[in-house]
Amino acid sequence: MAFEKMIHDAFEESRNNSRLGDTTDEINEIKEYIKNAKKIYVPNKNGIKVKVLNEVLNKYGLPEAEILQINTSTADTSRIPALAKAYMALDQSDADLIIARGRLGIPGSGSLLIFIDNKGRILTCGTSPSHPIHKKSLEQAVYEEACEALEKIGFDKRLKK
Amino acid sequence: MAFEKMIHDAFEESRNNSRLGDTTDEINEIKEYIKNAKKIYVPNKNGIKVKVLNEVLNKYGLPEAEILQINTSTADTSRIPALAKAYMALDQSDADLIIARGRLGIPGSGSLLIFIDNKGRILTCGTSPSHPIHKKSLEQAVYEEACEALEKIGFDKRLKK
Ligand SMILES: Cc1c(O)nc(CC(=O)O)c(C)c1O
Ligand SMILES: Cc1c(O)nc(CC(=O)O)c(C)c1O
Repeated sequence: MAFEKMIHDAFEESRNNSRLGDTTDEINEIKEYIKNAKKIYVPNKNGIKVKVLNEVLNKYGLPEAEILQINTSTADTSRIPALAKAYMALDQSDADLIIARGRLGIPGSGSLLIFIDNKGRILTCGTSPSHPIHKKSLEQAVYEEACEALEKIGFDKRLKK
Repeated sequence: MAFEKMIHDAFEESRNNSRLGDTTDEINEIKEYIKNAKKIYVPNKNGIKVKVLNEVLNKYGLPEAEILQINTSTADTSRIPALAKAYMALDQSDADLIIARGRLGIPGSGSLLIFIDNKGRILTCGTSPSHPIHKKSLEQAVYEEACEALEKIGFDKRLKK
């Protein structure tokens, strides 16, 4: 429960107005949570995103994700489609980690790839501009967003951890 | 109302399952919305973020932002602190554009700089890792996040637009 304690303690700091920003210990708790995830799901219709994500998870020495085949298309009418997809997957599974990708905000706002925990809290993310701007393949964009999300919390491809 | 029509039309595409992702026209509507913003507010206690943001807005030929002095510290106990700050600023002002920066998610998840419109919809964003990872000054991190948010929707420093 070091993870829950970390969240609890930071909450108290915020409440006391004594919070000075993130700490290395907090980042390490997020990394441990991801390393120890037993059920990682990726909501998706086809398997393209899952294949790419598993390539990335593998490169960083992390456990594999599974596809959760649910129709998330209604998420695109919500305020943060990527997050709506992640919540749908959480509510339809017993995952302890969800990785979801979709639009960031309004049409034209590009994409967001988001990691959430077993309670729907955001652990990390990666983003891309709209595809008409970056002109990359879906695979390449997902690949780079996932690397960004992991490197952001200190995972290192070369160390495989 | 081209902006509202764009959002309406994309919503219909999503409802009909005919949506194929963002279009250049949509991105251009977001750019026009930002270019034409009359009241841009940045919620902040001190003026550091606003000073840096105005440097950036200036580099891209965009209108200046003003500080909105509200205490946003309770936002840090919410799920997406950066977004909570943006909503607070929206609800406490008559802004048509809010630029807010705060934590992305749980403690350790790093920072999110977000642009929202007059209804609280997300237009674009920039992110950074936690400061113990990137080791940049607050000024430098805010600067880079703001450039990322603007370049992501096609603004170009060299063209000043
Ligand atoms: C439904 C949807 C949409 O409209 N836009 C995007 C961003 C993009 O086109 O780059 C995405 C990822 C998406 O899933
Ligand atoms: C309250 C708060 C917090 O705990 N963590 C961060 C991210 C960081 O430290 O890099 C930010 C921006 C913040 O406003």
